Amino acid sequence: MSRIKVGVLGAAGTVGQRFVQLLADHPWFEVTALAGSERTQGQTYADAVQWHLGEDPPAYARQMTLQACELGIDCEIVFSALPGEIAGPMETSFAAAGYKVFTNAGAHRMDIDVPLMVPYLNPDHLAAIPAQQMRHKWSGFILSNPNCASIPLAMALAPLCERFGVSRVFVSTMQAISGAGYPGVPSYDILGDVVPYIGGEEQKLETEPLKILGTWNGVSFEQAAIQISAQCHRVPVREGHLLAISAKLGTRVTADEILATWREWRPAAVEMGLPSAPAQPLVYRTEPDRPRPGKDALASDGMGAVLGRLRPCPLLGWKFSALGHNTVLGAAGCSLLNAELYVASEQA
Amino acid sequence: MSRIKVGVLGAAGTVGQRFVQLLADHPWFEVTALAGSERTQGQTYADAVQWHLGEDPPAYARQMTLQACELGIDCEIVFSALPGEIAGPMETSFAAAGYKVFTNAGAHRMDIDVPLMVPYLNPDHLAAIPAQQMRHKWSGFILSNPNCASIPLAMALAPLCERFGVSRVFVSTMQAISGAGYPGVPSYDILGDVVPYIGGEEQKLETEPLKILGTWNGVSFEQAAIQISAQCHRVPVREGHLLAISAKLGTRVTADEILATWREWRPAAVEMGLPSAPAQPLVYRTEPDRPRPGKDALASDGMGAVLGRLRPCPLLGWKFSALGHNTVLGAAGCSLLNAELYVASEQA
Amino acid sequence: MSRIKVGVLGAAGTVGQRFVQLLADHPWFEVTALAGSERTQGQTYADAVQWHLGEDPPAYARQMTLQACELGIDCEIVFSALPGEIAGPMETSFAAAGYKVFTNAGAHRMDIDVPLMVPYLNPDHLAAIPAQQMRHKWSGFILSNPNCASIPLAMALAPLCERFGVSRVFVSTMQAISGAGYPGVPSYDILGDVVPYIGGEEQKLETEPLKILGTWNGVSFEQAAIQISAQCHRVPVREGHLLAISAKLGTRVTADEILATWREWRPAAVEMGLPSAPAQPLVYRTEPDRPRPGKDALASDGMGAVLGRLRPCPLLGWKFSALGHNTVLGAAGCSLLNAELYVASEQA
Amino acid sequence: MSRIKVGVLGAAGTVGQRFVQLLADHPWFEVTALAGSERTQGQTYADAVQWHLGEDPPAYARQMTLQACELGIDCEIVFSALPGEIAGPMETSFAAAGYKVFTNAGAHRMDIDVPLMVPYLNPDHLAAIPAQQMRHKWSGFILSNPNCASIPLAMALAPLCERFGVSRVFVSTMQAISGAGYPGVPSYDILGDVVPYIGGEEQKLETEPLKILGTWNGVSFEQAAIQISAQCHRVPVREGHLLAISAKLGTRVTADEILATWREWRPAAVEMGLPSAPAQPLVYRTEPDRPRPGKDALASDGMGAVLGRLRPCPLLGWKFSALGHNTVLGAAGCSLLNAELYVASEQA
Repeated sequence: MSRIKVGVLGAAGTVGQRFVQLLADHPWFEVTALAGSERTQGQTYADAVQWHLGEDPPAYARQMTLQACELGIDCEIVFSALPGEIAGPMETSFAAAGYKVFTNAGAHRMDIDVPLMVPYLNPDHLAAIPAQQMRHKWSGFILSNPNCASIPLAMALAPLCERFGVSRVFVSTMQAISGAGYPGVPSYDILGDVVPYIGGEEQKLETEPLKILGTWNGVSFEQAAIQISAQCHRVPVREGHLLAISAKLGTRVTADEILATWREWRPAAVEMGLPSAPAQPLVYRTEPDRPRPGKDALASDGMGAVLGRLRPCPLLGWKFSALGHNTVLGAAGCSLLNAELYVASEQA
Repeated sequence: MSRIKVGVLGAAGTVGQRFVQLLADHPWFEVTALAGSERTQGQTYADAVQWHLGEDPPAYARQMTLQACELGIDCEIVFSALPGEIAGPMETSFAAAGYKVFTNAGAHRMDIDVPLMVPYLNPDHLAAIPAQQMRHKWSGFILSNPNCASIPLAMALAPLCERFGVSRVFVSTMQAISGAGYPGVPSYDILGDVVPYIGGEEQKLETEPLKILGTWNGVSFEQAAIQISAQCHRVPVREGHLLAISAKLGTRVTADEILATWREWRPAAVEMGLPSAPAQPLVYRTEPDRPRPGKDALASDGMGAVLGRLRPCPLLGWKFSALGHNTVLGAAGCSLLNAELYVASEQA
Repeated sequence: MSRIKVGVLGAAGTVGQRFVQLLADHPWFEVTALAGSERTQGQTYADAVQWHLGEDPPAYARQMTLQACELGIDCEIVFSALPGEIAGPMETSFAAAGYKVFTNAGAHRMDIDVPLMVPYLNPDHLAAIPAQQMRHKWSGFILSNPNCASIPLAMALAPLCERFGVSRVFVSTMQAISGAGYPGVPSYDILGDVVPYIGGEEQKLETEPLKILGTWNGVSFEQAAIQISAQCHRVPVREGHLLAISAKLGTRVTADEILATWREWRPAAVEMGLPSAPAQPLVYRTEPDRPRPGKDALASDGMGAVLGRLRPCPLLGWKFSALGHNTVLGAAGCSLLNAELYVASEQA
Repeated sequence: MSRIKVGVLGAAGTVGQRFVQLLADHPWFEVTALAGSERTQGQTYADAVQWHLGEDPPAYARQMTLQACELGIDCEIVFSALPGEIAGPMETSFAAAGYKVFTNAGAHRMDIDVPLMVPYLNPDHLAAIPAQQMRHKWSGFILSNPNCASIPLAMALAPLCERFGVSRVFVSTMQAISGAGYPGVPSYDILGDVVPYIGGEEQKLETEPLKILGTWNGVSFEQAAIQISAQCHRVPVREGHLLAISAKLGTRVTADEILATWREWRPAAVEMGLPSAPAQPLVYRTEPDRPRPGKDALASDGMGAVLGRLRPCPLLGWKFSALGHNTVLGAAGCSLLNAELYVASEQA
């Protein structure tokens, strides 16, 4: 089949760069449009971008010219890496104009009929798209992915929710600087230091998983009945958000049952053979000092979550650690996988 | 009055160095003995020590000769910075021989009649010393200070316990590398990384505060009725342990009541004018991104705790952050303050 | 005597903060004016400043109101911590209006009649001030301090120049992030990395020492006859610039002669008892792995330079390392010391 | 052809791990023996190793049993990752017994008839092997690779030597912690700090390149006539040694001629199509702030050197920066490439 035309909005930013990187040599998608800010428009991508992901941008993108983020760009699917303040209305206009918008921005995440998806967890939320289109009279649509720290939390909880139920969760995060984009966190604020604050992050962690793990009832999303308390910290780590989690399950279980649940978990997105899905999106490490960002952020090419340290919690029953790559699955990678899931579902 | 003779066991180690530093120009204590391992005995302190606390050891100590850690050293009070494996029996023999042992080691912390003291919090635990001496037929005694992360946790909770009661606590720590001594954590394990594991630390955090905040009933220590769940992490920070805490109080309170409780707290150790006690051992910062190790570890010269970020917790009622200097009040500084409290109490 | 009124221009910036800090409790100077950008004017200093130097601004400054950086502020001496782009003309107008301007900015450093001073090294350059005033018809004047990396280089070389002559110098720097101000270096660019580039820095290092070590001939400064080659790097260190230096001396000397020269060096600024001058501004460490920023940046309270590792160089004769605190003596501290020197000279 | 049997001595150490990793799926070599210290012998590799290179050891090695480092291990080629103190005599005994020893250890580097090779630079030094075998009456041989910092220095200089001649070189290094192995540098010594000392390193940098760039005269190696002065530093970087270099060339040249020389350089090892040789082992970056470890260490999969910042040097003519991956080409990778070159040469 011929590949589907895709465009990237905000292509020169840090999340945009990850889209550009992950879309290199993609079997289903062909990048036909890169769009950027006024500063970058008209320049080649190689000239416009301050590339942060290793040596150089991929060959296919280097000579592409950055366009304006305006309706009319030549593509069917739009990946949005737009900054928060302009993402909302711009994504709306693209969806209205018929583009399929897969966005990493936060603007529409909690909208009543916008799926907040991690393909491994809630592929059935695709069902909200027709309702969204009908309500807004859009020919296109908007589909969001969650905050970078919500994803590993939701991935750790999802198999447990399904099998045992989960009612209460504590989570304390230690998040990488790349989560703040570029220039992002000043080095003076984080070198040899830890900052116990990331604006708006705790609220996202306490609400997004409820939508992800909730259900689409045909009209709106019903939130999962979980109470989450989150505390978020920035740490001097480049890539990989680490989470310390305590959870109360719905039934009495053993550690072996939990471990088996995680290990046997095979989400449909993996069974479907989506190009960007790893063989095993959830990995449990048995070493006492894992997961840790330096060793595990790139597990499953950054498209999964890594768990470890399951042990009893005196308050809620079980404690464990979870890790996710914040700029791969935690950002552009999740949008890409959402798009792959959508395409595969359409063709099924 | 003439100053009291004190000695330091394990004087060349990292905790020992802090004792040597804090004892410089002490108004009540005169260092008359520095004792070290076989490797260091017979050398001058300046030659034996690989000094980690800035430029140079204090002048008074440079030409002192390191002695063996054996009974007979010329002093009344012994500060123990011995490593865990040998601290237990050696401290026992010093106590039996009549020395007053103030120890930072963990060996005797949970002994039935050894006070585990932070002078700000439980000065009345001194009352256990006569019982300890009688039971063991010792002319000296052992008095311990808590683990470096237990101290800021206990300090944050103590005023709340006293006024409102506290029943349940979650704590997730981000601890500095200096807590592991020297050579301690290999740089390859922590540079740009976070390690979700510190051996034995969680168990200490879940139990030590219960003894500190408990009561001496004349025979043994009754633990405070608090359930604590701890998750401990090592972060690439040099000094200062940061704690994310959630707590359930015994009564419904407002944020203003909690803040007032912390702010109005004036422990007896401060009122007594102990030389190493700061004017205000508990500081609450109102900025949204404080406390953080880089800015706050040296608050109150490292002899206090810094709190911040009080906000509602969906699960337990209140969340906040706490920070303590792990090698000042968190180690040698607490032992020194314990000794000052003891001396002041004896003279009262 | 009553204290001299001083003001700080750019008081809320990072260099300005250091001025505010160092001027606390100054025996000769009283801060009567703090001036800042449009954003900060009219606010109290405590409200306007994002304080970077530990916990809190000094008490004297907290309730002072930030004024506009305009002529008319009530003071005799002006310390300028203005950003480069506006420092030049503004300092000129203050000097013209009669203020004595001691500046850390780079704008006038290489002006023909502006002294570029490190008081330890070239106090006789004060003699240029009358010529400067006459030429411009100013009642005030401008006196500059050098770039933060030039200072430890010049300090290491000065005693050697004086006694042996120095003809050629290689220097490779490893400079702290605080040298770039705030927000300065993005953490993404420096965490776990080294950047082999600091804009304009190498040119400063290759020229400023020649003026500092040169002579005032009554009309202009004659440069010292030294050839310097510099390579500059940013490293993930908070405070303290480290320099690897090779130097060709004018005569054959032994290591002992060099060490003696450094050790015996007693600059006039120290003999004069200036309040901010340490007893020993040049320290030589004999350990093989010193100086290093973590241990030595605060030597002499940051008002000196630390040397070490003197050894033969196959090309130029001698190699050694030098370290200076880049935001104390390397910035505000040098301006302050310049002002103290000026005042002491006037009164002599 | 069937693959050649190879073994790794010191397979569980940090350099050994890199051998094990790079030999996975090698087209010419089959790992038939892994040998380790007494502590590890008899264990499976997966059990014995504390793996530092990301998640997990390669599949082929996991279940292999670690043997003793003794004669008789089943292989033709031996890669030595032995620690310095035991490498010398053990490598000798393996060479005497007929093994072809490719070593990363320093013991034999400067031996009169042991090639010190970087295949890109001095493949003709293979000619020393028959002389070595004859002199010692060995059926095997020893072939060394240089120190990790010598390699990028020699690679930058080699094309210049060949075309213009090079007579004098200054080099200041900023070296990654992984160069010190594991546990290696204590975090307390390097976190937020720079150490101006690496034992023995400067002497290696001042001598090894002379042998590498020298010539084999049939009896011994004649050193290249270059004077090198080196200053070495440890920096808080995980992988990648950065070098600041100044060089005096034999003739007057322009920057363009130097750049062309580097860009056009195509060493024989690349033309021969060795499996581990990248297409372009020498890369010149035109950005002002490159090379830097974080972005460039993995250029050419770590099997090359990256140059940048060519500019005039007031003393020697030209300054530039060079970067090499210290544990790939800087250690195991160079030994592997040496073995590939040897095998290809034998078969030619």
